[in-house]
Amino acid sequence: MTDESLREHPVQGAEVFRGNFLRVRRDTVQLPDGTRTEREYVLHPGAVVIIPVLGEAGDAAGCRVILERQYRYPMRQVIVEFPAGKLDPGEQALACAQRELREETGYRAAEWARAGQMHPLVAYSDEAIDIWLARGLEAGPRQLDHGEFLQVIETSCAQLMAWCRNGTVTDAKTLIGAFWLQQWFGGQWQPQWQPAGAQAP
Amino acid sequence: MTDESLREHPVQGAEVFRGNFLRVRRDTVQLPDGTRTEREYVLHPGAVVIIPVLGEAGDAAGCRVILERQYRYPMRQVIVEFPAGKLDPGEQALACAQRELREETGYRAAEWARAGQMHPLVAYSDEAIDIWLARGLEAGPRQLDHGEFLQVIETSCAQLMAWCRNGTVTDAKTLIGAFWLQQWFGGQWQPQWQPAGAQAP
Repeated sequence: MTDESLREHPVQGAEVFRGNFLRVRRDTVQLPDGTRTEREYVLHPGAVVIIPVLGEAGDAAGCRVILERQYRYPMRQVIVEFPAGKLDPGEQALACAQRELREETGYRAAEWARAGQMHPLVAYSDEAIDIWLARGLEAGPRQLDHGEFLQVIETSCAQLMAWCRNGTVTDAKTLIGAFWLQQWFGGQWQPQWQPAGAQAP
Repeated sequence: MTDESLREHPVQGAEVFRGNFLRVRRDTVQLPDGTRTEREYVLHPGAVVIIPVLGEAGDAAGCRVILERQYRYPMRQVIVEFPAGKLDPGEQALACAQRELREETGYRAAEWARAGQMHPLVAYSDEAIDIWLARGLEAGPRQLDHGEFLQVIETSCAQLMAWCRNGTVTDAKTLIGAFWLQQWFGGQWQPQWQPAGAQAP
């Protein structure tokens, strides 16, 4: 079955909600059988998630990572998650990853490796999240935004995996970060490290 | 740092957008330092994702899975993903998983195991997705909703992992499904199988 036989074609559309944070668009689309329906989805500028790895460890035993604990109001609970943030207008993903890591945790990383991209909610958001590993970490002062409250924690990768299994970690980008760590440690994936000063791809 | 020192308390709020599909709520919240801000987020009834495993395979080598190819309009592309769907009002997660698997792929599964829960977008959606493995699959007729177009495909778990690494799979719930398969095959996690007829927890 070709992509064309699944494709939906836009007919018309408009932004139907612009909040202080969220924007929603509604498009009329033509389905593969010629009938029409509507799609509503959140417009998002894109984001990054950072998997900050301490030490040189490329093995599960010695590995430690930086995580955050942050109250996520929609969930009404504190969520354990990897550092992440939205792209500023015109910002490259790697530059955003470096900025967010520094602002939220205080860490700067000497080396970066792109793990890929994820789409958190394909049904109703156009958000794409670029996934970056960071190592060669050097601690420094945090620069939290006004009104931003979060706790930076350090834990072993073994503990992270246990938290994924026992339901302590439920955040999608963090579960996917654990997946990449596991691919790395299992030898199925080799990060292509680049120095922090290199241009983002 | 306690959860209380991170918590945000609701002050007032209302639904600010009700589309044909999406609902958005805006709440004023009090931050830990006593100042106030606003949170906007999508209201969602909850969902399930199903990881349908063919054969008895508890090993990576023999494992095969059922996936779908579906055009996701917000991404403007065909997305490879595990079967998934929204909870109907009052519906239990396992019942929903069984219904969605049957409707979208035609398969019925003899045994089910819950892998946990994921939150796809903690910043601006309250959606939670229950994750279920299914095995003992028996093929049957699909019952797609009107206007639903998707292709059911079968592939090896090794191919799925390769697709995750090379960027063919970017859907969050599908990457997380691959993570659970890897935990299972690696012996770090043992699914607790239950017969299809058992009550959902």
